[in-house]
Amino acid sequence: MTTKNLFLLPGDGIGPEIMAEVKAVIGFINEAGLADFQTDEGLVGGCAYDAHGRAISEEDMAKALAADAVLFGAVGGPKWDAVPYDVRPEAGLLRLRKDLGLFANLRPAICYPALAAASSLKPEVVEGLDILIVRELTGGVYFGEPKEIVTLENGQRRAVDTQLYTTGEIERIARVAFDLARTRSGRVASAEKRNVMKSGVLWNQVVTKVGADEYPEIKLEHVLADNCAMQLVRWPKQYDVIVCDNLFGDILSDVAAMLTGSLGMLPSASLGAPDPATGTRRALYEPVHGSAPDIAGQGLANPIAMLGSFAMALRYSFGLIDLAEKLDAAIAEVLDSGTRTKDIASEGSNVVSTTEMGAAILKAF
Amino acid sequence: MTTKNLFLLPGDGIGPEIMAEVKAVIGFINEAGLADFQTDEGLVGGCAYDAHGRAISEEDMAKALAADAVLFGAVGGPKWDAVPYDVRPEAGLLRLRKDLGLFANLRPAICYPALAAASSLKPEVVEGLDILIVRELTGGVYFGEPKEIVTLENGQRRAVDTQLYTTGEIERIARVAFDLARTRSGRVASAEKRNVMKSGVLWNQVVTKVGADEYPEIKLEHVLADNCAMQLVRWPKQYDVIVCDNLFGDILSDVAAMLTGSLGMLPSASLGAPDPATGTRRALYEPVHGSAPDIAGQGLANPIAMLGSFAMALRYSFGLIDLAEKLDAAIAEVLDSGTRTKDIASEGSNVVSTTEMGAAILKAF
Ligand SMILES: CC(C)[C@H](C(=O)O)[C@@H](O)C(=O)O
Ligand SMILES: CC(C)[C@H](C(=O)O)[C@@H](O)C(=O)O
Repeated sequence: MTTKNLFLLPGDGIGPEIMAEVKAVIGFINEAGLADFQTDEGLVGGCAYDAHGRAISEEDMAKALAADAVLFGAVGGPKWDAVPYDVRPEAGLLRLRKDLGLFANLRPAICYPALAAASSLKPEVVEGLDILIVRELTGGVYFGEPKEIVTLENGQRRAVDTQLYTTGEIERIARVAFDLARTRSGRVASAEKRNVMKSGVLWNQVVTKVGADEYPEIKLEHVLADNCAMQLVRWPKQYDVIVCDNLFGDILSDVAAMLTGSLGMLPSASLGAPDPATGTRRALYEPVHGSAPDIAGQGLANPIAMLGSFAMALRYSFGLIDLAEKLDAAIAEVLDSGTRTKDIASEGSNVVSTTEMGAAILKAF
Repeated sequence: MTTKNLFLLPGDGIGPEIMAEVKAVIGFINEAGLADFQTDEGLVGGCAYDAHGRAISEEDMAKALAADAVLFGAVGGPKWDAVPYDVRPEAGLLRLRKDLGLFANLRPAICYPALAAASSLKPEVVEGLDILIVRELTGGVYFGEPKEIVTLENGQRRAVDTQLYTTGEIERIARVAFDLARTRSGRVASAEKRNVMKSGVLWNQVVTKVGADEYPEIKLEHVLADNCAMQLVRWPKQYDVIVCDNLFGDILSDVAAMLTGSLGMLPSASLGAPDPATGTRRALYEPVHGSAPDIAGQGLANPIAMLGSFAMALRYSFGLIDLAEKLDAAIAEVLDSGTRTKDIASEGSNVVSTTEMGAAILKAF
């Protein structure tokens, strides 16, 4: 059994609590001899800033680059609101994405049947919802230069961010979306603002060409990003795979996640390009939810999105499909039994803490 | 009675049908001697392109600049998808916004009690919803330069859009939001991505300073734009006035509009700065919905958003508050009576056509 290296970055807020539940599952897997994971742990976000004035240290960056996969909790919180821009908690996450080349962010939005009632949408609108947002993660306005605030001669300040996309960046994320659509319904919706943005025009053209040349069997639809946000609220089941740029993906995936009523449940995977020699991809797995500083340290956090992110790691980074399926099934079983953390509780639920939820899932595993 | 000049730009798709209902109301107001409107009509969008190869002619731009207010229908449709970028239908609308200096876009999202059931959200989430999105409309990524697609030496193409904001642009839209909050609940939420964008950092700082210096009594909250989109889906009633930049405003206002289940009902006003001499503002009024080419010409369009936009014109451009209130009341009365266009029909509704709806509202006026 080859040893697999996992680098854990719990981060801030509820990050450490939910990561603790993943560690318990990893420990169990190792002890049972189901796989051989070696773990190391680092600091990212506000806690890294507190420790050494940076959102992530060079040492931890090196460990992330060397690992087979990174598990990431969450970063940020009001405590660091006044921290300089370059060392703010989010800078750690953005650097990881950029330096690891994690251009493909997969965000499934699944409505768990047991939780349809928790959505603010009508049950018939979200029941059975299963869409996948494929978000470009290393380009666009997140990283384009110039990105600065300058003081003008008249004393005014002017802020600039630059939305930048090249043909190649769009091609590779389009291929990820089309490949995934092949394993699903065979449909892709591509969202942009081609009526206002030149990057939207290029996005539209490149996705169209990749689709026509390489994936003629996939049904491709183009939708304006504002209309897509609207349609997600109106009738989300019209979509299967949605591909979009970094900023639209940020917003659309949050809308999609919230529709499901299962925000604390949704995992994500951020993948790099396959290594030409080995075929392996750099990868980081993180829950879609944030650091929830308001409930941190109280045992209220829902560890399921973090555990689901580890299941995605088992699947995508290690090919341990059986174990991934077992973990997903354990989560579903515990939910079916009515065991709930507070965020997803309804009448008659058995309300449990973070550690109790983790233990219940481990028991069902 | 001074004559007021209205310039009508019905545009494409359902634009002409819904504008026809406004014309009927204007005709009635003139005949009854309630006011004296002089109207002229022009072309914008795809129909303007078909007529003279531009999304709006210089002649019609001059008329728009000279008018006391512009009433705008909607532009665009698949027919013009392949038209060159600079003369695409939307270019007409964007030029009107820019050249008329309409920096403040007011988009109320109101859930009409009679229509709460039409929302995809649970009734308790949207009943009584009344929020106002104040969107910056002449800056940001919509107009920033460079905005281009270039071919690189390696044959790749690269698209650039530029998100640009100055202190002054943010100050003036913040003041509009704070002023409006004074007439409402006294609360403003400002949405940006300060954790990723320098324009978000500046936006946050300037809105904070305007609030503290000039509106200390208004409660100001900052929210990340992605989280705001989420919160709008989760519990929209937590918001009253939301202020944001051009692109976030585009998306957030569409989400907010869709929540209400009343998309065909929502008007908007785009206002310029008050003229230092006369105190009057340039203004354009348009429905939030688009040109709906799929239902154009079939008498299916809901004219209420267009009529409500005219009511906003009566109020904001002409100070004809009584007439505005009468028109709004007529709309509400007709809805209460169960008369509905198809988009908002439910069991037991009296389903009517565009012209029948217009006639019913005019009768109740
Ligand atoms: C934390 C923040 C920088 C991040 C983003 O904007 O990408 C987050 O919102 C996300 O979606 O992962
Ligand atoms: C038609 C389009 C250019 C426009 C925009 O993006 O501003 C529309 O979506 C809107 O919100 O008014």
